[in-house]
Amino acid sequence: MTENEIMDRVPEAVVRRLPRYYRYLQALESMEEERVSSLKMSHDLGLNASQIRRDLNCFGGFGQQGYGYSVSKLKGEIETILGLNRSYQLIIAGVGNIGHALLNYPNFEKRGFQIAALFDIRPELIGKAYGNLVVQNGKEIETIAKTLGADIGVIATPKNAAQEVADSMVAAGVRGIWNFAPVEVAVRRGVCVENIHLNDSLYSLCYHMAAEDHLSELL
Amino acid sequence: MTENEIMDRVPEAVVRRLPRYYRYLQALESMEEERVSSLKMSHDLGLNASQIRRDLNCFGGFGQQGYGYSVSKLKGEIETILGLNRSYQLIIAGVGNIGHALLNYPNFEKRGFQIAALFDIRPELIGKAYGNLVVQNGKEIETIAKTLGADIGVIATPKNAAQEVADSMVAAGVRGIWNFAPVEVAVRRGVCVENIHLNDSLYSLCYHMAAEDHLSELL
Repeated sequence: MTENEIMDRVPEAVVRRLPRYYRYLQALESMEEERVSSLKMSHDLGLNASQIRRDLNCFGGFGQQGYGYSVSKLKGEIETILGLNRSYQLIIAGVGNIGHALLNYPNFEKRGFQIAALFDIRPELIGKAYGNLVVQNGKEIETIAKTLGADIGVIATPKNAAQEVADSMVAAGVRGIWNFAPVEVAVRRGVCVENIHLNDSLYSLCYHMAAEDHLSELL
Repeated sequence: MTENEIMDRVPEAVVRRLPRYYRYLQALESMEEERVSSLKMSHDLGLNASQIRRDLNCFGGFGQQGYGYSVSKLKGEIETILGLNRSYQLIIAGVGNIGHALLNYPNFEKRGFQIAALFDIRPELIGKAYGNLVVQNGKEIETIAKTLGADIGVIATPKNAAQEVADSMVAAGVRGIWNFAPVEVAVRRGVCVENIHLNDSLYSLCYHMAAEDHLSELL
């Protein structure tokens, strides 16, 4: 199957589970495991074994009866589907707490994500060095990101600046926006947005806690 | 409809959209908007208007033909369903970059989430003050969290410490875990886990970018 044929066949719900499989296979690989069965995956990941088999069948990751999957082959296939068989240049707008957390997040570079530029509009931060990077003026995102050929723009600014930053990044040609600001940003067709909204995640947790309370009242 | 009856009726996919509706209604309320139509919501949120009407009908948020929804009433209903009509005591394990980001995240307290304790195992951090809070020894999570009656435990530690921290939090009686460590944690039945895995989110973004490339090759 070609990569393009695979893309046509993988449903969104499966895509959402792939990063988790990928992370799991990386862990197995680092422990020098060569093969893994869907039963072991099911046990370790807390997912149904037949769902795992169906998910992996979507892109031709066929296990052998009694032998399971080859860890390195399966990991390689998922890597290709996720588009992780290449490297990406990231630029970060906003060097506050989230920006710092990302700068210090382990393994971004090892996984092929290179932070290529930092931007902020606060005068006290412009010119400040973090490792090899110097914070640049947020007004110059478009020019600098275009020169760098940045792939992904990270928005780690307060919410009132998010749309303007997104516009500059898109004008510079980034094809993906990773948005940490608690607001939706609008982009032109063809640009992808992935949001990390901390409050939404916390609200979901509260919902599930309230639902558990309700359940335990019924029992 | 009682709260319990509502809980039985709201599908998971709707639940995932509720925080976004909630955030949107908060914004409308802060602009002193009293009513909103599903068409305006559809336009502002980029969702299908009939889907919005169906979602809101799930919990009795009926709009009036030609008048739309009452912003404050709808916000109040969603708040109750999400379990946000009460306050929560959070404890944070790990005062690294993620921990700092959370300490400085605006509006947690305003939204009813009170950070009640900080923990770390690094000797140079134990005893350090952040606002009213002093970093306490990570070995004492269970005792201290139990005394505080903490509701939610936040795991912002490196991944190799995550399970042990989760175990202490669950033993202390927390009913929700908000996990930022890039690893799954196992908990007993009745305890809820919400994961924020930054790498997974970045991988999903890359997948969608790769899928867009594939689409543009076809055109």
